[in-house]
Amino acid sequence: MIKERIEELRRNMVQWGWDAAITVGQDPHDSEYTPARWCQRQFISGFTGSAGVVVVTMDHAGLWTDSRYWIQAAAQLEGTGVELHRMVSVEDCDWMAWTVESLQEGAVVGVDGLCFSMGEATRMEQMMAARGQRLESRPDYLEAIWKDRPSLPSAPVWIHEDRYAGRSMDDKLAWLRGILKEKGCTHMFVSCLDQISWLLNLRSPDIDYSPMLISFALVGPETVELFALESKFSGEIREMLAAHGVNLHEYSQVGPFIASLDCGGRILIDPATLNFETGQAIGRAFGKDGMLAAASPIDLEKSIKNAVEIEGFRKAYLQDGVAQTRFFMWLENELAAGREVTEWSALEQLHRFRAQDPDFLDESFETISAYGINAAIVHYETVKGHDARLEPHGLYMNDSGAHYRYGTTDITRTVPLGPLTALEREDYTLDMMAMIELSMAVFPAGTPGGRLDAVARRPLWQAMRNFGHGTGHGVGNVLSVHEGPQTIRQNLKPVPLMPGMITSNEPGIYREGFHGVRHENMILCREAGSNEFGDWLCFETLTRTYIDTSGLDLKLMDAAQIAWLNDFNAVVYRDLAPMLTASEREWLKAKTAAV
Amino acid sequence: MIKERIEELRRNMVQWGWDAAITVGQDPHDSEYTPARWCQRQFISGFTGSAGVVVVTMDHAGLWTDSRYWIQAAAQLEGTGVELHRMVSVEDCDWMAWTVESLQEGAVVGVDGLCFSMGEATRMEQMMAARGQRLESRPDYLEAIWKDRPSLPSAPVWIHEDRYAGRSMDDKLAWLRGILKEKGCTHMFVSCLDQISWLLNLRSPDIDYSPMLISFALVGPETVELFALESKFSGEIREMLAAHGVNLHEYSQVGPFIASLDCGGRILIDPATLNFETGQAIGRAFGKDGMLAAASPIDLEKSIKNAVEIEGFRKAYLQDGVAQTRFFMWLENELAAGREVTEWSALEQLHRFRAQDPDFLDESFETISAYGINAAIVHYETVKGHDARLEPHGLYMNDSGAHYRYGTTDITRTVPLGPLTALEREDYTLDMMAMIELSMAVFPAGTPGGRLDAVARRPLWQAMRNFGHGTGHGVGNVLSVHEGPQTIRQNLKPVPLMPGMITSNEPGIYREGFHGVRHENMILCREAGSNEFGDWLCFETLTRTYIDTSGLDLKLMDAAQIAWLNDFNAVVYRDLAPMLTASEREWLKAKTAAV
Repeated sequence: MIKERIEELRRNMVQWGWDAAITVGQDPHDSEYTPARWCQRQFISGFTGSAGVVVVTMDHAGLWTDSRYWIQAAAQLEGTGVELHRMVSVEDCDWMAWTVESLQEGAVVGVDGLCFSMGEATRMEQMMAARGQRLESRPDYLEAIWKDRPSLPSAPVWIHEDRYAGRSMDDKLAWLRGILKEKGCTHMFVSCLDQISWLLNLRSPDIDYSPMLISFALVGPETVELFALESKFSGEIREMLAAHGVNLHEYSQVGPFIASLDCGGRILIDPATLNFETGQAIGRAFGKDGMLAAASPIDLEKSIKNAVEIEGFRKAYLQDGVAQTRFFMWLENELAAGREVTEWSALEQLHRFRAQDPDFLDESFETISAYGINAAIVHYETVKGHDARLEPHGLYMNDSGAHYRYGTTDITRTVPLGPLTALEREDYTLDMMAMIELSMAVFPAGTPGGRLDAVARRPLWQAMRNFGHGTGHGVGNVLSVHEGPQTIRQNLKPVPLMPGMITSNEPGIYREGFHGVRHENMILCREAGSNEFGDWLCFETLTRTYIDTSGLDLKLMDAAQIAWLNDFNAVVYRDLAPMLTASEREWLKAKTAAV
Repeated sequence: MIKERIEELRRNMVQWGWDAAITVGQDPHDSEYTPARWCQRQFISGFTGSAGVVVVTMDHAGLWTDSRYWIQAAAQLEGTGVELHRMVSVEDCDWMAWTVESLQEGAVVGVDGLCFSMGEATRMEQMMAARGQRLESRPDYLEAIWKDRPSLPSAPVWIHEDRYAGRSMDDKLAWLRGILKEKGCTHMFVSCLDQISWLLNLRSPDIDYSPMLISFALVGPETVELFALESKFSGEIREMLAAHGVNLHEYSQVGPFIASLDCGGRILIDPATLNFETGQAIGRAFGKDGMLAAASPIDLEKSIKNAVEIEGFRKAYLQDGVAQTRFFMWLENELAAGREVTEWSALEQLHRFRAQDPDFLDESFETISAYGINAAIVHYETVKGHDARLEPHGLYMNDSGAHYRYGTTDITRTVPLGPLTALEREDYTLDMMAMIELSMAVFPAGTPGGRLDAVARRPLWQAMRNFGHGTGHGVGNVLSVHEGPQTIRQNLKPVPLMPGMITSNEPGIYREGFHGVRHENMILCREAGSNEFGDWLCFETLTRTYIDTSGLDLKLMDAAQIAWLNDFNAVVYRDLAPMLTASEREWLKAKTAAV
């Protein structure tokens, strides 16, 4: 099937005068998760990994991917005629060099410019210039051979109400227009889905686990031109949008609309996320001097939650705390009664408890339900029918989250299901100490998350343990569960942590073939005071799910850490008790008893 | 006097066709401390600060300097006709913009290209190009009016013997030539004094507190051309150098020698430290394609101490520990007897104790001897006659160091001279905790110092205290007491800490008008082991001067910190006891008693 697709593509390439066709597999919005419609890399190669580039020439078809996917790719490419090229790092551009060098002088390389970034195009054009080669964009070029290509998701759009957003669309637009004016701009082109959804307070379940509207937005001095599937909008919402100066256009009209523009203004674009095709159209419409390339101001503004959003998150963590209390109580009872519980049935049961809230929308990412050695696989996928049975010993890890209308959660609990090995207990305790140290941190205003990362890792480092992922990521409000611009991780990104930012706190320890531990709470950055040494910040933990103290080796912890732990569990009990039944309360009382 | 100098300079400028003359005040070697011969900024303006630029045009003379020097500069410029221009940051280049904008099109700006960096010249030429202006280098142009300009220091050169260096000049040259070959180079031009002195194992007291030889070196495939004051070299040393392929030339001949080169090779230069004049000469001799601009490989190699150097440092800290034990015992006795001790007399007394070692060469920097409120001034200068008297209460800070033939020290002790205020005690303790936390740190190989900085600051941050300087700097072996490339400080420099690097550990707390605390030990980076999580590093403390425990509030410290402290003091006593008299031993025994 793949072979036929590639042959058909080659026939089209002859017609278009292309010597090579490139498929990178991203969507037009630089999204973290690619909607089915844009899984073009998978369509043309059969490879289902999340990173890789396919290059098809007249006599070669190749997939370039990094070491995470070498085994999977080799298996999936078998019999397709697509050759695997192994890249050392995901940042490598071997495929670019290969393409430029394999083709003759003056060759033409085709891409779907909607699904190719401006940055990649610029780099590629620089390399091609030396050989007189040319890059040509043909949007959706695979559509000619992709008969059953998925359409745009058609589920209805809904309003993320002001009582959840804390800020009206008008207020956000007025703020953005003020910023644009300061920067000498009249317009801004927004292509990131979470930015558009935040700005216009619109939501739609277009991306799995991330209720964002697939769209582009052109913000002008008076109006906003919104490009999306029109049929998703009710008459009521259309009218409301029109009344606020938001004009709805068909998604596919973004290119023609920009081409028809004659406004003489200056437009802000974020080259880190803008696609090649749209970037070129904007360049033609506004001219080189009419464009300001800069980081989108929406990203930072969105990350600083307002008082209403913070209250919504608090409520979401209470609600999640209730569901998780019920879940872990159920789990303990099931195992005690000797009934079968598997990773998948546990995951389903937690879903049922969460879904009891009428404001529950969806999980905020695919739940990781992992027992024993499976928890050592950092991005373990729990697959029905291939999932392990939970046994009454060792560690079970559950990393899950939900979107409620009022906020989004992300929480990991690793809990003992019975006796632990000495090493399980040690890792469980050290990782808890790491999470607690970051929770308690006080730091000067202006500190980027990368400078705090070592504070979280210190208890692990002292015992010569470490983990390969970041310590913290931002969380969107009923948007993507991963958002920037702040991070707490190894590499230094010069974005200071600021009051109102909500970030995860999730150190881990993973031992292949043995066990994995991760404890994750959500922390809100707050002001801690000012003195002659400057302004100070700290964190408030929002999570309200109890911490299982039975896995701890208290001898490893210091008094401050134990005090934090007891305070935390006491607050969890205090806040959840009124929402629980008598038996649940009793069970939680015991779980949260001071140690 | 300054007025006359500027008038005379202007008469010369007319003759040379210059519209402006710039004096930046650095030496030709990018040195941290400028030898008297190159204090040109001071000569032409009267300003003695360590940073600033003087621009003289036909109708204006101005000094640009940053906020550290505004008060001092305003006082020193009074009556000179030189106007003060206030720069917000030391990195600002307001003076460049001012010069370019004040002058007409086609103007000529003169500099002493030996004392002007290539980087500054490139930036300036870019700004001038738009206005058709030209930058002209005239080495030593102030000499025409500077009748009594100091000569090059004439003190003799000595050999830093292999038994101290741990590595022969031949070995170092063979290593460097190997690196050059790898990089496709035949030559390297070295202009930094510590790099040349390290490479050739030569020393000379040319720079105050930094026994380095003022020189340039051109390393070729077979020979080294060394440019220095020839009269400083004994016949014996000349012969030894010649026998190892090092040809001595007069310092001033570096330019003519390079101009006469016709070797067709490729030369490595470090543009961060090379001066404009020499850079231009090298460019003419080797051509653009014959130059590789890269960070000097010597810098990193020099920072990783070999086994002999490490033994030398250990010995130096023992020796320093003896001198400091005697000093603090003397101080305590003097104060107890009611005799007058001042900051200056204390400084002199410590010098006498250090100088008892026949291998003592000099202090490694100007001693900071600061009592009470003076210790709150981070770069306090102890001036004879203007120094404070020590009283039997509060905190006294002594930050000093020495060059012994076998190693270099840098150590700060803050000690209580009697009763402390509650705040003094708290700051004394918190700062000790910060020093101890860094001392105990374990961290993954590859960690840059900037990522560890927060580990040291954490105990201060938790109490909302902080300090504005770096936490640690590298230390040269009988070279400069400040050396790179590693640092432990707020900004992230991507240089990993590596085994063999010796770095200071010196957190502080300063309260203007009250007191200052700084505790400083020297730490050697060492391997700590390897496991499934990777390779691990830690620190070994080299310092052997006791820590005064009487100022501590033990309630603030945790058990691990107290254990570290008791271990440290026990080791100090164990190692120093054999070198002390009976009464000194007894005194130190009490000081180092476990708490």
